[in-house]
Amino acid sequence: MPDEFTVTPWEVRGQVDYDRLVTQFGTERITPPLLDRIQKAAGELHPMLRRGVFYSHRDLNWILDEHSKGTPWALYTGRGPSSGIHIGHMLPWFFTKWLQDRFGATLYFQITDDEKFLFKDFEDLGQATKVGYENILDIIAMGFDPKRTRIFLDTEYIHHLYPIAVEVAKRITFSTTQAVFGFEKANNVGEIFYTSIQAVPCFLPTAEAGREVPVLIPCGIDQDPHFRIARDVAPRIGYPKPALIHNKLLPSLLGPGGKMSASVPESSIFTTDSLKDAKKKISNAFTGGRATVEEQRRLGADPTFCSVFAFYNFVFEPDDRHLAEVERTCRSGERLCGDCKLELWGKVEGFLRRHKEAREKAKDRVEDFLVRD
Amino acid sequence: MPDEFTVTPWEVRGQVDYDRLVTQFGTERITPPLLDRIQKAAGELHPMLRRGVFYSHRDLNWILDEHSKGTPWALYTGRGPSSGIHIGHMLPWFFTKWLQDRFGATLYFQITDDEKFLFKDFEDLGQATKVGYENILDIIAMGFDPKRTRIFLDTEYIHHLYPIAVEVAKRITFSTTQAVFGFEKANNVGEIFYTSIQAVPCFLPTAEAGREVPVLIPCGIDQDPHFRIARDVAPRIGYPKPALIHNKLLPSLLGPGGKMSASVPESSIFTTDSLKDAKKKISNAFTGGRATVEEQRRLGADPTFCSVFAFYNFVFEPDDRHLAEVERTCRSGERLCGDCKLELWGKVEGFLRRHKEAREKAKDRVEDFLVRD
Repeated sequence: MPDEFTVTPWEVRGQVDYDRLVTQFGTERITPPLLDRIQKAAGELHPMLRRGVFYSHRDLNWILDEHSKGTPWALYTGRGPSSGIHIGHMLPWFFTKWLQDRFGATLYFQITDDEKFLFKDFEDLGQATKVGYENILDIIAMGFDPKRTRIFLDTEYIHHLYPIAVEVAKRITFSTTQAVFGFEKANNVGEIFYTSIQAVPCFLPTAEAGREVPVLIPCGIDQDPHFRIARDVAPRIGYPKPALIHNKLLPSLLGPGGKMSASVPESSIFTTDSLKDAKKKISNAFTGGRATVEEQRRLGADPTFCSVFAFYNFVFEPDDRHLAEVERTCRSGERLCGDCKLELWGKVEGFLRRHKEAREKAKDRVEDFLVRD
Repeated sequence: MPDEFTVTPWEVRGQVDYDRLVTQFGTERITPPLLDRIQKAAGELHPMLRRGVFYSHRDLNWILDEHSKGTPWALYTGRGPSSGIHIGHMLPWFFTKWLQDRFGATLYFQITDDEKFLFKDFEDLGQATKVGYENILDIIAMGFDPKRTRIFLDTEYIHHLYPIAVEVAKRITFSTTQAVFGFEKANNVGEIFYTSIQAVPCFLPTAEAGREVPVLIPCGIDQDPHFRIARDVAPRIGYPKPALIHNKLLPSLLGPGGKMSASVPESSIFTTDSLKDAKKKISNAFTGGRATVEEQRRLGADPTFCSVFAFYNFVFEPDDRHLAEVERTCRSGERLCGDCKLELWGKVEGFLRRHKEAREKAKDRVEDFLVRD
């Protein structure tokens, strides 16, 4: 029996059973026939699809139907600016970039500085907004198409968001937020209202275009509860329900039992980590290795809960054949954890160098992406 | 013992005991020494002060202290655009105009279209905004100084309001809204959040000026609960507490037991009523008269719960001596209800004609008062 776990947009605790989440949240599994459809439409399958990192969805068939009819549709994802960006935050961004490249969709990228102020220990709102601007550099560094990407901070774009947010808010009771998020009477009224703001970009493309624009949201499965509410409300306020595609959360470098957390810097690689710090984190990462080299050579190791293998599998090894080889030689004892860490570091180092450079250049490009008016 | 009554920002029911409200809400009564201070500072006393229509306050002495030191302070009042404007809505506006004239204060006038959408049967937000624009014509027609008056609709000015609103919202729990407003779990999350928006203009003058600007809020006592919360939050987010001055609610033309209501058109005179309709409403008004003329001549009448007398007393008869004479001759039986109604109509007709004309002219002046950017 799986351990107990909790997944909400603000807390992930315990060893997550992703199969059980599909049942609990009422989403659908991405099946082989659906993968076929995506492959046909996109011309290829992203590794995160092939490997089940993106594993669950809502109404993805509808997006593919509309795409095949030539209907323009939009992408929506977001960032809660509580801290710097780590690899875990980027999972949906890598995938969203691929979707944008393959399908040519316009991307709405929401920076929820209001949320992070309301739910976090920030003393004033400006601190969250400031972190938001830092995070935007990482988003731009991903390589999104500036012509098709609109990044906005909630507090600066609120005049576009609020009129739709109150339409949403009118259809959500406190009871619903209790049932969906586990809120209590001691929650603050900003937290209670907030989901209405996160719902808005589901509807904004339609509101702006004056005709139905389907929206697909790539996001961590932990964000699904917001959009379950948004989907309930959508038909009651005259908008199409947003579709979703959900990823599993990248495990912590420190081992199983929870997603990466900015409050535990060792748990992931941050884009602002020095190369030295990043290398040290990988050296210290939890693996599926044995107590001694001798034992491991003899019995082999187990990649199942290995953080290093997860980093390969989720992000850093696009080549399925090489990944299979890594797994085989790990299990056989040919490969040691030190080998894996060294190879992973080579990949992470390359990524970090390129990302840091792109992030630096992004400082001059913020206005190409940010929408305010 | 007084009958049971309810006073919240959204509902006034039963025969209001205004003395008991002072205790219940924890406000202070306007005492003769305070009236003296106001008279000295203003050079006169507004009839609504002399007659106790404005009868309760919070920290009014502080405003007068600051005024005597030459500190600039601001006025803040508002309008929830649920319907057309009746005389009852205008009570605080007449008084606010007098305060602006006498003290030269800048007036922040909030139009809460979001609130009225969230709490009322409007099907979409645009309907509330539209009523808001109609109401703005009535506000401008009051004769406020365009150089010192900033009218704004919540949904159009939200980019200035929202950053402060979330600072407020973070310090209010659902429990507080239950205790103060009687909210339940079935309330929508927009209603629950809303008081954070109504709090903002308490703090906006200080935020804009970058230094402490005292704010005085003239409003119906029914609005006090919002500002009790705003005052609790103020020091925790670095703003001065707003001061308040509260009016009693103008009785219905149909008799005691509730304020005027737009859902009962006969209960008040609306600025958009035709002269014919307005006259008819006054003819049909509830009075303190006797069953027959003969009886009234013999026994006199009672102005205590007379709607016509209330209209004189609250608004339409600034001359204390004449008001006293009306009361005396009513009680003695010299004056009949028909006499009072005819005289009142003369005053109301004059007011309506002037207001309608000013309201028509206001259509070209909206941009002189409205702030959006």
